[in-house]
Amino acid sequence: MEAGDDTPGTQGRPAGGYARSPLPRDKGAISKLIKEKISVLFQPSGRRGEIKAGKTVLQAAQELGVPLESICGGKSTCGKCKVRIQERGLEKSDFSGTRLSPLTPEEKKFISPDERKLGYRLGCMVQLYEDTLIFIPEESRGTQQVIRKEAREIPVDLNPAIKAHYVELSPPSLKEPLADFERLQSALHRSYGLADLSIDWPALLVLPQRLRSEEWKVTAMVWMDREILDVLPGKVEDYYGIAVDIGTTTVAVYLCSLRSGQILSSGSLMNPQVAYGEDVMARITYAMVNPQEGLTRLREAIIDGLNTLIRNTSEAARVSPQSILEMTVVGNTAMHHIFLGIDPQSLGISPFAPALHRSQNLKARDLGLKVHPSANVHILPIEAGFVGADNVGVLISETPYQKGEMSLIIDIGTNGELVLGNNRRLLSSSCATGPALEGAHLRFGMRAAPGAIERVRIHPETLEARYKVIGQEKWSDECLPEELQSRGICGSGIIEVVAEMFRAGILEKSGRFDGKRSSPRLRRNEKGQEFVIAWAGETAIGQDITISLSDVRAVQLAKGALYSGARIMMKKLGVNRLDRVVLAGGFGSYVDPERAMILGMFPDCDLEEVVSVGNAAGDGARIALLNRGKREEADRVAREVEYIELTAYPEFAMEFAEAMLFPHMKDPFPHLEGILKK
Amino acid sequence: MEAGDDTPGTQGRPAGGYARSPLPRDKGAISKLIKEKISVLFQPSGRRGEIKAGKTVLQAAQELGVPLESICGGKSTCGKCKVRIQERGLEKSDFSGTRLSPLTPEEKKFISPDERKLGYRLGCMVQLYEDTLIFIPEESRGTQQVIRKEAREIPVDLNPAIKAHYVELSPPSLKEPLADFERLQSALHRSYGLADLSIDWPALLVLPQRLRSEEWKVTAMVWMDREILDVLPGKVEDYYGIAVDIGTTTVAVYLCSLRSGQILSSGSLMNPQVAYGEDVMARITYAMVNPQEGLTRLREAIIDGLNTLIRNTSEAARVSPQSILEMTVVGNTAMHHIFLGIDPQSLGISPFAPALHRSQNLKARDLGLKVHPSANVHILPIEAGFVGADNVGVLISETPYQKGEMSLIIDIGTNGELVLGNNRRLLSSSCATGPALEGAHLRFGMRAAPGAIERVRIHPETLEARYKVIGQEKWSDECLPEELQSRGICGSGIIEVVAEMFRAGILEKSGRFDGKRSSPRLRRNEKGQEFVIAWAGETAIGQDITISLSDVRAVQLAKGALYSGARIMMKKLGVNRLDRVVLAGGFGSYVDPERAMILGMFPDCDLEEVVSVGNAAGDGARIALLNRGKREEADRVAREVEYIELTAYPEFAMEFAEAMLFPHMKDPFPHLEGILKK
Repeated sequence: MEAGDDTPGTQGRPAGGYARSPLPRDKGAISKLIKEKISVLFQPSGRRGEIKAGKTVLQAAQELGVPLESICGGKSTCGKCKVRIQERGLEKSDFSGTRLSPLTPEEKKFISPDERKLGYRLGCMVQLYEDTLIFIPEESRGTQQVIRKEAREIPVDLNPAIKAHYVELSPPSLKEPLADFERLQSALHRSYGLADLSIDWPALLVLPQRLRSEEWKVTAMVWMDREILDVLPGKVEDYYGIAVDIGTTTVAVYLCSLRSGQILSSGSLMNPQVAYGEDVMARITYAMVNPQEGLTRLREAIIDGLNTLIRNTSEAARVSPQSILEMTVVGNTAMHHIFLGIDPQSLGISPFAPALHRSQNLKARDLGLKVHPSANVHILPIEAGFVGADNVGVLISETPYQKGEMSLIIDIGTNGELVLGNNRRLLSSSCATGPALEGAHLRFGMRAAPGAIERVRIHPETLEARYKVIGQEKWSDECLPEELQSRGICGSGIIEVVAEMFRAGILEKSGRFDGKRSSPRLRRNEKGQEFVIAWAGETAIGQDITISLSDVRAVQLAKGALYSGARIMMKKLGVNRLDRVVLAGGFGSYVDPERAMILGMFPDCDLEEVVSVGNAAGDGARIALLNRGKREEADRVAREVEYIELTAYPEFAMEFAEAMLFPHMKDPFPHLEGILKK
Repeated sequence: MEAGDDTPGTQGRPAGGYARSPLPRDKGAISKLIKEKISVLFQPSGRRGEIKAGKTVLQAAQELGVPLESICGGKSTCGKCKVRIQERGLEKSDFSGTRLSPLTPEEKKFISPDERKLGYRLGCMVQLYEDTLIFIPEESRGTQQVIRKEAREIPVDLNPAIKAHYVELSPPSLKEPLADFERLQSALHRSYGLADLSIDWPALLVLPQRLRSEEWKVTAMVWMDREILDVLPGKVEDYYGIAVDIGTTTVAVYLCSLRSGQILSSGSLMNPQVAYGEDVMARITYAMVNPQEGLTRLREAIIDGLNTLIRNTSEAARVSPQSILEMTVVGNTAMHHIFLGIDPQSLGISPFAPALHRSQNLKARDLGLKVHPSANVHILPIEAGFVGADNVGVLISETPYQKGEMSLIIDIGTNGELVLGNNRRLLSSSCATGPALEGAHLRFGMRAAPGAIERVRIHPETLEARYKVIGQEKWSDECLPEELQSRGICGSGIIEVVAEMFRAGILEKSGRFDGKRSSPRLRRNEKGQEFVIAWAGETAIGQDITISLSDVRAVQLAKGALYSGARIMMKKLGVNRLDRVVLAGGFGSYVDPERAMILGMFPDCDLEEVVSVGNAAGDGARIALLNRGKREEADRVAREVEYIELTAYPEFAMEFAEAMLFPHMKDPFPHLEGILKK
């Protein structure tokens, strides 16, 4: 496909996409009509902006910060990004050669002939070549993901790596012609005791003019008491940092003031790498089978995504990206390697040796991140082949190594990461859970955003369901359910639903639907058996929100992996009971400990001692952002924790099979008995 | 000139040039005929290569490493780069719109109508748009500058910043899955005692694949025992460094083996910044009056020039630029600032404060230098506003701070730099000498290259002159003078000529021609008085090689500045006599101490104690390249030397006026008397 590179339609599109979205053959005819930049207007938000011609609606929405749902990450497999192309698009929606890319076979699967007439298209498929007005229907409106971590108060001593030091210098004279840098350094030494400072090259380049234009009154931004990153005019009141958690499925960032430690804004999006593979192994494979460009594409995808989040969060907080002077990053080993541009191949092959463990400090400009070019990006250390910097983030946030009690920490993501231990010894391990517990890959799964069902109760006799959605205080039986504008089920919601279905007897211990129960909500159609949580009339999407057998199976696989991992680690440590269980992960979705226990996500424990902490990995990134001493702690604990490879244990397969059942095939759950009887 | 940017003819041309070389107005007609790349063949060298269309012959010659004389640095003011455009150029030399840029008014000054018919053009003016054969006539053939420093043996303990450490690692296993970097680090610790190593990002990116493809047998290239710059396959036998001396007029580089310390090749060229100003102040002014692009252009000019030298010297030494892992750089303060991209403005205004003094370490990739991208570029520290890293190079090469005797070191360049002192106290200062002593700006001045007259003797009675050229053993009276192929006079030659003219009585003490002397060699024409060193018939250029009154005046100004500087420093130190005088500078041209004394370049001293050391600044760069301990010494001495600003002394003007005379208006020269009587 030699000529493909300059085909206008492929501009900015991930490669995974364009094989599915063939362009009109007559390139010449089109290229004459192509504008370099086009205007788009999104409704109902009214957001307007310029984009490169040839971009998809989804890309345009991401660039302009318009929320558009995209569960599959632009792979045209979820059909959740339906949009209506309005102005002038209507009459030409079958593509007359100028305005839109033609309807793809994938779109035909999701868009009915009637919808086509109305101008409906998939946002991830349709490419724009002229000024366009796009309407995003309610069900496709990806609202800003809720990151509830803002609510969680973490006690952190504020001691950021960056400090702002104001100085007034005496100007040079023929008698005292000391150079500008040495003059600044001696003032910083006099006033703040800083010695042996270096200066980042770009800061040196502006130094002479800056000192003179500011009449020798400036603020030096100093990193780790050793490098001047910039010299700013006058007194600097506030400056900022961003903590980043790169999950396999979701990327979250927290923009913090480094003066107050407060979170000023936060944001998240689907990891754009999802287009190249849904889990870690798929992405490693993608990099392996595309040795020339695979890694580059994966890396550019995450860098672009982070730049979008940087732009959006700094706009929301009304701060300039230039005043963001520090970033901390956590992520699993593969995300870590790809972010750094390291080929992740060796992570995909036994013995899964990573390229390095230790933490790294790199310049934002070298990584391509659009904050202050001299900003330092601190990437936390990793533990082992599959236990990455995200787990180190969990560790410095939960600090099991400071406690005498035996803790099990379960970090739920596309990969589940487990830590077991106390102040004497810590083990870590990793298992594949799939994206179900993050709300992805379920028929009505969605991210933790307003409208997502997060709590469910099912009456054991009537099988009536009531629910609560994110962003609303009331349950569906406390108001008109349509007021809740429910749109789908988030990760913590799916745990509730399945646990409640099991408790109400809709599901058997094996996960099958109990054929003896009957209710209007329980039905069997061409897609198999399903249970209705919310009726079409109550929802914002005009469809029944249901849970199918395959959704239940996805949850069983995930929880089985976690449970069996915990069992093997307990054996290895010689531990029979857990003092404490910490449930982390699932961005913004707090897992209900009781329902997690009903499902059997972990071995028995006093329910009082099971806590749900949300995105602890992201908390760890934020802690390391706000307190540089925590970085040393992270380096130390990353070296000390012992990684165990679960698949190296012959008993793992059997443990896994037994743990698939609700709550387990044979393990006793003394603490659960009272609950199940309720 | 909005449209000028994409005018094909301006590609790659310095801005200073294109105002003088207007392009045909009909851009459309030309652009259709433009090829992106064209082939050029230089004769008689036979060198062939591809260049971008629109480049000048001079640029093409520089790119392909073909020696073409260019005293003025491409400013079309010296007329020394005359070339003959041959193939198909002949019939179209008046420019028919396709092949060459049109003849400029500047070219008309140097090229006679007869020459035009033969296809002569100025290499710096004529731009090429089609495949072309170019003949370089003898007089324009810039031969490789002689850098005699290769001959100078400097005792340096070989202790380069880069060391090559071979290691064999055990591959990872499930039981021992340590990360690649930590595995390498522990092997380096075990075998070589290296701890706390970091790794440069690009090296980390290749590490996993490199270790595996090389079966865990690699050589780590470690900088300063602290950073791994690269991990190379198997055992590395040799690796290289380049020492760079950026002079205002001439740039010199020395490619050394870091295993043996030997110079493998060396090269020099006219500093391409000459196109923007001949001396330091002119270039600072250029940067000031072109605030947007001036500095960028100056910086790109020197980086391009260095990349040409890197390419040429590594080709000559048959080493890959990728295996050059370290560079050291010296230069005066302005060259230092521009090289780093620092606006030199404050150097041009009293109190002449530089941006920084301390030495810098930067990555070659950040500077745009085409050696190994992870190579460290060490820029030596500077002393003061006008005493730069070049002088620090002289200091660590001559080490006056280790000696009890009172030394005066004169570093002759476009700026003269002076050091006076001993192991108790050291002073430095700077004065403007102009480029005359580097062989530039004289009617027949040239760089120190084969054919350059470097030694001259004039019989005091007959006024007959005999001379010796670089590259030949015999004097002109020991062979047929035409065998010597003389082409001009180099910097050391001009000192000899003027000293001999004075000693022979051709010049008076004031520098005027003595009207009472007569000889066929002494004549007055429309250009004023002149003395013939070599007759046209003897030379390779077919013209008399002469010295004019204005050439003599240029030498007087230069030597007067140096002498008066030395006097003021001696007063400041309370010193009446010099134990030792060191003459440095003038790339490749060894100044004859006796003749320098006859001219009065410095106060009286025992001639036995006057030594000529050539390019000591370049030696210093080389010493710092080969021995990292010398870098610390350089940092220390740069801090300790006391800079004095000569122009701040009211007596400077009077001293200068008196010192313009040969050898001086009134100072006694007891050590000279015997010599002058010879």
